[in-house]
Amino acid sequence: MSLEKKAVLVIVDGLGDRVVREGKTPLQLAKKPTLDELAREGSVGLMNALGPGVIPGSDTSHLAIFGYEPSIYYKGRGPFEALGVGISLKEGDVAFRCNFATVDDELKVIDRRAGRLKDEGKELAKSLQGMNIEGVEVVFASSTEHRGVLVLRGEGLSSNISDTDPHTSTKNAFVLESKPLNSGKEAKRTAKIVNKLVRRSKDILSSHPINKQLKKEGKLPANIILTRGAGIYQKIESLKDRYGFDSCCIAGAALYKGIAKYIGMEVLEVSGATGRIDTNIEAKALAAREALKKFDFVFIHIKGTDNASHDGNLEDKILMIEKADKLVNLLKKEDAYLIITADHSTPISIKRHSSDSVPLLIYGDDIRKDEVKFFDEISASSGCLGHLTGVQLNGVIIDLMGCGHMVGS
Amino acid sequence: MSLEKKAVLVIVDGLGDRVVREGKTPLQLAKKPTLDELAREGSVGLMNALGPGVIPGSDTSHLAIFGYEPSIYYKGRGPFEALGVGISLKEGDVAFRCNFATVDDELKVIDRRAGRLKDEGKELAKSLQGMNIEGVEVVFASSTEHRGVLVLRGEGLSSNISDTDPHTSTKNAFVLESKPLNSGKEAKRTAKIVNKLVRRSKDILSSHPINKQLKKEGKLPANIILTRGAGIYQKIESLKDRYGFDSCCIAGAALYKGIAKYIGMEVLEVSGATGRIDTNIEAKALAAREALKKFDFVFIHIKGTDNASHDGNLEDKILMIEKADKLVNLLKKEDAYLIITADHSTPISIKRHSSDSVPLLIYGDDIRKDEVKFFDEISASSGCLGHLTGVQLNGVIIDLMGCGHMVGS
Repeated sequence: MSLEKKAVLVIVDGLGDRVVREGKTPLQLAKKPTLDELAREGSVGLMNALGPGVIPGSDTSHLAIFGYEPSIYYKGRGPFEALGVGISLKEGDVAFRCNFATVDDELKVIDRRAGRLKDEGKELAKSLQGMNIEGVEVVFASSTEHRGVLVLRGEGLSSNISDTDPHTSTKNAFVLESKPLNSGKEAKRTAKIVNKLVRRSKDILSSHPINKQLKKEGKLPANIILTRGAGIYQKIESLKDRYGFDSCCIAGAALYKGIAKYIGMEVLEVSGATGRIDTNIEAKALAAREALKKFDFVFIHIKGTDNASHDGNLEDKILMIEKADKLVNLLKKEDAYLIITADHSTPISIKRHSSDSVPLLIYGDDIRKDEVKFFDEISASSGCLGHLTGVQLNGVIIDLMGCGHMVGS
Repeated sequence: MSLEKKAVLVIVDGLGDRVVREGKTPLQLAKKPTLDELAREGSVGLMNALGPGVIPGSDTSHLAIFGYEPSIYYKGRGPFEALGVGISLKEGDVAFRCNFATVDDELKVIDRRAGRLKDEGKELAKSLQGMNIEGVEVVFASSTEHRGVLVLRGEGLSSNISDTDPHTSTKNAFVLESKPLNSGKEAKRTAKIVNKLVRRSKDILSSHPINKQLKKEGKLPANIILTRGAGIYQKIESLKDRYGFDSCCIAGAALYKGIAKYIGMEVLEVSGATGRIDTNIEAKALAAREALKKFDFVFIHIKGTDNASHDGNLEDKILMIEKADKLVNLLKKEDAYLIITADHSTPISIKRHSSDSVPLLIYGDDIRKDEVKFFDEISASSGCLGHLTGVQLNGVIIDLMGCGHMVGS
């Protein structure tokens, strides 16, 4: 089939919630005239990206919503983070999320975020570049604050290894030894390389002038890197390969840019898109309008709702919902389907992802119009779209665009 | 993750139904103020334990609701019955449900329930103990009325064999020969042992003093055992292994106790819990309240609704629904999620399990509150939980408890 109509997909991260006040969810409490208007005019439903009862990660949920079944396409988070910070990956590369951390001489973790660095990461990262361990090339890039990305490049690597990051801020947590998670020689070798690398990072970073300066200022030195989320990179068929259309991504946070690159989207850099509550929502909307002139499918990611939820901050969550409403208002007159949903719920009561469904809204000029009057978790449960998974939602969007394939004849 | 909140799961067996009077289902006809109150205050939805369009057994539906995919974990009913009557099983044991029956000398079945025995089964069972056939140990235990459980213990057994019970009360039904259901030598051997055993039971029971006495009283002798529902026992990971919490079961009927033991629940014996319409519902509720002090997850099974449905007895079904309402009323103030649903529908019009969905209700202080006002099959269809399978419902419960695992990161 060929493109019949363009589409804009807006993912409001962690949007779904539970009752928080007056028997209502944040979506029910927020002022969101445009989202409600579009719910009245459009088709509404519920969605669980990985199916009901499953707690989705941010990475797996996005893959599913883009039509990439996570059980097939998800190989760990590392590659998305690497792509997201601009590293070009090669087939077989193993990528990790990293933290700069502070440890003592016994490798006891003093702070797994090294006091949340400011801009020091960039300079420190340079000292870790260009290493070669047992014939494996090491690529390292810093990201925001204490965060970084590590890539191992060479033959015979595996991502089936455990984290060196103890994932805890409690006292007496030590740097973990990476262990192979299966019996293959690749995993054994990769774990060994990672352990060498982590120890070598300690040697290099400990004597780095920046750390001497941090110590002088009474701050925590960033004297080691801790690895987590190992993932092997595989080149997969792009959205273009699958459906023939051109797509782009407008997001602030690295992960979502990385996922977009993984599936062949062009990542647009929008000034003021921060992936935080201070994001410039108008700039994102205007960038999307501009992008629709060139691209057939525009993905907009709004991260602030999820950050607010993880912080348990209801006021910020409501504020971000109202920002999302403004974004949608700036897009509603475009000649494209407008799909608004979330990757998962993050109830502010529990400050973590949950399996609760999320509302889903499809607006455009050739759809069904149900009797739902508001865009929220409760109203959506009687919508005409029913209850979809992420992969199913992708099928609906692709079909609306005219790019689906009939099964049978 | 770690436990955030406890939960009580109430399964009202065979609860779902169709229109029976005045255009209403039994649930719509019954007076159930607490269930309706909780529906107003909580989240409601529909559930099909094995998915829409599938007729669930009592065993498979419970497995699914506890999160054990029946296609993986269901190996026949026998082991549940054996565990339910208190037999300790070993890996590889093959267990059967049995009836004491009355046959003539040509093995024609006169009554496959031997006139529904009173207490004679217990004594008769002793005479069948301790047999050894071809190196296979025989364990036999009587259950209620004419029912019993047989366990074969030894190397190289299989449950892929057919029943010796003809499952019919019509004239001219003969004891069937057990046949292997695949070409393996284990199935062939096990079928041969069962056939020997059934014939030997005829020899032993025919000359038993109790049967002589029954004959003298003009009653049918229990002169053979008929086997059905062969199942091989495999040790599986418990709820504790999976989720880290302690769980218990409050049930009257053996099957549900057996399923509970299979997945590692502690089975609490509650005086007056009969698995029938005369069950002491207050005793079960009070036992559950007590159990919540020690256990994180409490499963309560109410059987009477299903019995009434199989008998086509509307008044009894309504009575049992009203009893269930009382139980829920005694539990609603506990500091735990309260989940109320059924394993399957048993419409009284057809007196058998059906694929009709069942209503589902989740009540607690950190959930969504939808606009559903009553707890019944029709009202539930517009609830915010949507339409779940049993395994999906388990995911929802485990997530609410804080014991779920995120897929992805």
